[in-house]
Amino acid sequence: MPQPAHPAAVNGLTLAQAETIADAALAKGRELGLLPLCVVVLDAGGHVKVTKREDGASLLRPEIATGKAYGALAMGFGTRELARRAQSMPGFTNALSDLTGGKAVPAQGGVLVRDAAHNLLGAVGISGDVSAKDEEACIAGIEAAGLAPDTGDPA
Amino acid sequence: MPQPAHPAAVNGLTLAQAETIADAALAKGRELGLLPLCVVVLDAGGHVKVTKREDGASLLRPEIATGKAYGALAMGFGTRELARRAQSMPGFTNALSDLTGGKAVPAQGGVLVRDAAHNLLGAVGISGDVSAKDEEACIAGIEAAGLAPDTGDPA
Amino acid sequence: MPQPAHPAAVNGLTLAQAETIADAALAKGRELGLLPLCVVVLDAGGHVKVTKREDGASLLRPEIATGKAYGALAMGFGTRELARRAQSMPGFTNALSDLTGGKAVPAQGGVLVRDAAHNLLGAVGISGDVSAKDEEACIAGIEAAGLAPDTGDPA
Amino acid sequence: MPQPAHPAAVNGLTLAQAETIADAALAKGRELGLLPLCVVVLDAGGHVKVTKREDGASLLRPEIATGKAYGALAMGFGTRELARRAQSMPGFTNALSDLTGGKAVPAQGGVLVRDAAHNLLGAVGISGDVSAKDEEACIAGIEAAGLAPDTGDPA
Repeated sequence: MPQPAHPAAVNGLTLAQAETIADAALAKGRELGLLPLCVVVLDAGGHVKVTKREDGASLLRPEIATGKAYGALAMGFGTRELARRAQSMPGFTNALSDLTGGKAVPAQGGVLVRDAAHNLLGAVGISGDVSAKDEEACIAGIEAAGLAPDTGDPA
Repeated sequence: MPQPAHPAAVNGLTLAQAETIADAALAKGRELGLLPLCVVVLDAGGHVKVTKREDGASLLRPEIATGKAYGALAMGFGTRELARRAQSMPGFTNALSDLTGGKAVPAQGGVLVRDAAHNLLGAVGISGDVSAKDEEACIAGIEAAGLAPDTGDPA
Repeated sequence: MPQPAHPAAVNGLTLAQAETIADAALAKGRELGLLPLCVVVLDAGGHVKVTKREDGASLLRPEIATGKAYGALAMGFGTRELARRAQSMPGFTNALSDLTGGKAVPAQGGVLVRDAAHNLLGAVGISGDVSAKDEEACIAGIEAAGLAPDTGDPA
Repeated sequence: MPQPAHPAAVNGLTLAQAETIADAALAKGRELGLLPLCVVVLDAGGHVKVTKREDGASLLRPEIATGKAYGALAMGFGTRELARRAQSMPGFTNALSDLTGGKAVPAQGGVLVRDAAHNLLGAVGISGDVSAKDEEACIAGIEAAGLAPDTGDPA
């Protein structure tokens, strides 16, 4: 597809990168026989580049997947860590949820996307199966684009 | 009643099916001597087909019943499971409540409606008595329409 | 159907009356060949007794019909008058909409329900066809229950 | 990509159809030299199947495109008609905006998707260029999937 003539203000991930991530994440879900998934890819400003919801994924999956990716960007670490804080500091994660109007979901499956120089390019969120499987599909998508996943654990 | 001449885009349950479910659910409530109930039937997209609130049911019962049915559709399983997650994963169910503006209620008594081929047609929510009794009336309504209830437990 | 043993706190319309109104309103819509309708009947406190959405009615029709009935109860006159005020006093109806979080819809088709002694029992809202036709179906429903419609015009 | 083993409750458009629509709509935008676009495809229940935001499209384009598609589904006609009503009945469209929490956007470029039998399958919304151009890209996408666009004008 020819590119727009207008100079593109790209804030992190391009649409082409986001498509690669989303398609590879869903392919991993099918390979693993996961429940139907929804994958959302946000740019570095927290705005949607790509959403894809598989047939059979329940109706709130786009919002949950978006909330995982947004939660990761909001705090600057993957939601594996945010889910831990929801256990150890529920008052804080409840406040975070209220502060964002419910847009930050503290469940595993929201993964930051970085380049080789550790620059932040965006985040991926997946919802549909159990949280650990959702995260596994995120990681597969990010790696398929030649980028580095940041789940919230120390590297 | 004659049907509209306009081609009807039915998104899961028909109005006739939803009426059958609601009436049979309320009849079960009377048979069991339950407190006054409100029953809500949603289509597969989460939009109301039928609401009926019995005389004496308190004023928020329609919203609670709707929230149970919507919670089931939002997540893709009956609220018996969502109620369990509210116990084991309170951070997530709090976030879910915030994310939906309070529209997903994690209490037993929200039951998915499926056909013989396991296709999702909608959901039923009931509020008025204790949650287990509310669910019992949901199930009776769904079965009266020749459809299959999905409470959130493994089949 | 046997009635609940509990003393019923009925605030205006009973469920039986609301069912009669809703069914007769939809029958009028079919008789006139109207587009698929949604009918909502609220009690005197503004809380739902009955909602029925015909097959093919678009997805926001329950909220619009509820908003017409609620707008009538909120102001104490039928929405024929509220629609006139939306033309003559848009600042006020916009403020009313904001004040109610969007729950008061200033369009014809929200009709108060009164008894022979002019007591207020509730309101009916219909959405689906043009507003004047929606109102016509409301009136037919209310009259079928032996009650008096109040559209917002002087009697 | 292999399909999930789980029975898929598809509520109108499949993911494959939604991808075809979105890709063809963006290709039309490039062919016409339009400004960077965001395209959103919703299923019949108003829930996202696909979102794609081109590089350079500004940050609220996903919400605007979603609001056009949702507005069309909410009312049951394309937003070409809803935009006309925003001119002739501003009180009603303001109320509709409030009622939906801002989720129904009355601007051209929200187009219903129907099959050959006129069944409603979902809606497409595009934002990025002027509204008439946005709509042109919607139509191209829908036709590329072998489906029928409904812009809100009489057929």
